[in-house]
Amino acid sequence: MTELPTHVDIRDVTLRDGLQIEDPIPLSAKLDLLAAIAATGVREMEATAFVSPSKVPALADAAELAAELHNFPGIEFSALIASPNGAKRAIAAGLHSIEYVVSAADSHSRANVGRSSAESTALIPEIVAIAHDSDVTVEVIIATAWDCPFDGPTDPQRVVDIVTAATGAGVDRLAIADTIGTTTPRRVTDLIAAVRPLIGDTPLGAHFHNTRGAGVASAYAAVSAGVTRLDASVGGLGGCPFAPGASGNIATEDLVYLLRDSGIHTDVDLDAAIAAARVAQHAVGHELPSSLLRAGDRILG
Amino acid sequence: MTELPTHVDIRDVTLRDGLQIEDPIPLSAKLDLLAAIAATGVREMEATAFVSPSKVPALADAAELAAELHNFPGIEFSALIASPNGAKRAIAAGLHSIEYVVSAADSHSRANVGRSSAESTALIPEIVAIAHDSDVTVEVIIATAWDCPFDGPTDPQRVVDIVTAATGAGVDRLAIADTIGTTTPRRVTDLIAAVRPLIGDTPLGAHFHNTRGAGVASAYAAVSAGVTRLDASVGGLGGCPFAPGASGNIATEDLVYLLRDSGIHTDVDLDAAIAAARVAQHAVGHELPSSLLRAGDRILG
Repeated sequence: MTELPTHVDIRDVTLRDGLQIEDPIPLSAKLDLLAAIAATGVREMEATAFVSPSKVPALADAAELAAELHNFPGIEFSALIASPNGAKRAIAAGLHSIEYVVSAADSHSRANVGRSSAESTALIPEIVAIAHDSDVTVEVIIATAWDCPFDGPTDPQRVVDIVTAATGAGVDRLAIADTIGTTTPRRVTDLIAAVRPLIGDTPLGAHFHNTRGAGVASAYAAVSAGVTRLDASVGGLGGCPFAPGASGNIATEDLVYLLRDSGIHTDVDLDAAIAAARVAQHAVGHELPSSLLRAGDRILG
Repeated sequence: MTELPTHVDIRDVTLRDGLQIEDPIPLSAKLDLLAAIAATGVREMEATAFVSPSKVPALADAAELAAELHNFPGIEFSALIASPNGAKRAIAAGLHSIEYVVSAADSHSRANVGRSSAESTALIPEIVAIAHDSDVTVEVIIATAWDCPFDGPTDPQRVVDIVTAATGAGVDRLAIADTIGTTTPRRVTDLIAAVRPLIGDTPLGAHFHNTRGAGVASAYAAVSAGVTRLDASVGGLGGCPFAPGASGNIATEDLVYLLRDSGIHTDVDLDAAIAAARVAQHAVGHELPSSLLRAGDRILG
């Protein structure tokens, strides 16, 4: 039996990954949702993305949202960026933490940002320099770390190469992301085993979607393999409700339930997470895939 | 890293646990569904239950269904029973394998069969005698092995006591069941660790529901702990669509997907399981919770 960690940090990604493919909702609704999520006790939140407003209209209010974040002290907010220009915009908007996405698969990388994976990787040093010049923390998130929707399985060596480049460039954190929700526990532990020896003390996070029902199992596998940073969204928000096969992030409340009952502490209160999921469901106006939102907690001893 | 088994036997429980709380469907529809499930390659199937027709009207056609099972050679069919009389009815109907359910929690046991857990346990020897006198295999399934919907957490000692009684009575197989879908991987491995030393070579199965999103993770935990017999239903059928919080068995196709990508063989073909889930969805006339049914397989390398 693997030794489990005693604490896992959950980063809430509801406002970015959760909302990015929804119809845009008003800033006031985002702030209500943010307040509900803040009430869960979560310490880190991905607030928005500084990317093309025409490609992601739901996050076009990134700067306006960023201007409100000072109202939520005690939470470390981050924003996703996909280019040096995005990094500059995020920093100008007051963010102290950015995430640069590099897709390990070429076809997804080109569809997402119009560059090959190698071209995106080559930009890491410039983005680290921009961030560190402003005392901003930078994380590299490796998208399509297991599978690409176009290319199929991602050669783990592609992930290893990006990890090597990122650690060489001095990034502050790394994360591996199952962008399309295809991975499973064994593949998770295999990739972590390949990456771990290369990163020294650099914190490694993991990001899963529940598209094929294995998101929570994969998250637990990552934790069992020593990962103590996981992304999640309240209600399991994310994925397009109109696209067959799409599905959301792992639901914060489903993850917290499983971790709690495994003796693993998080800063997130389960009841507050369920309440926040309800706020999220109301904000987007359609049913969310969360299990705990429907079933509620078990009777505790 | 725990050593994983190379093969897991899946028992399909669609026709019993999947259908039991649905509105009754015609025998012809059950046979169409059975044929679709048989086409997956699955070797074991829980076909029905010989219980009170007034309590479970969806399975009132147990004897009629049993009379058709000879048309599906190569599959070991079983039926659930809850009393010596049920055992006799199942055997008279031609079943060669029965499952006797004993609920570890008193409140669930009384609600389910009108007896305490100890009273149900005391019937095991009589049921084993009835079965073995007719060369019929008997499995004891321990329901509410982790939690009771009324009593809350089940003391593992209660499960251990039933296991001890069952092995002492010479049952052929054992299974532990998460009847209300509350357990999680750590609790699964803990209970298996408590039960394993007591059962010698008696095969141990596990039965999970996905009510709180952890069913597949729990199944994988069981497999990681050496369990090689798992129940599942196509489409994740099961649970009442009209009851808040209810939810189905783990979906065969979601389980097979995860096991396949973990290097674990089953006899079940994934595409055929998805096709059978579609048949199940049509038969009951409402959407099923399966993930693979919506998302489909990933692109394989």
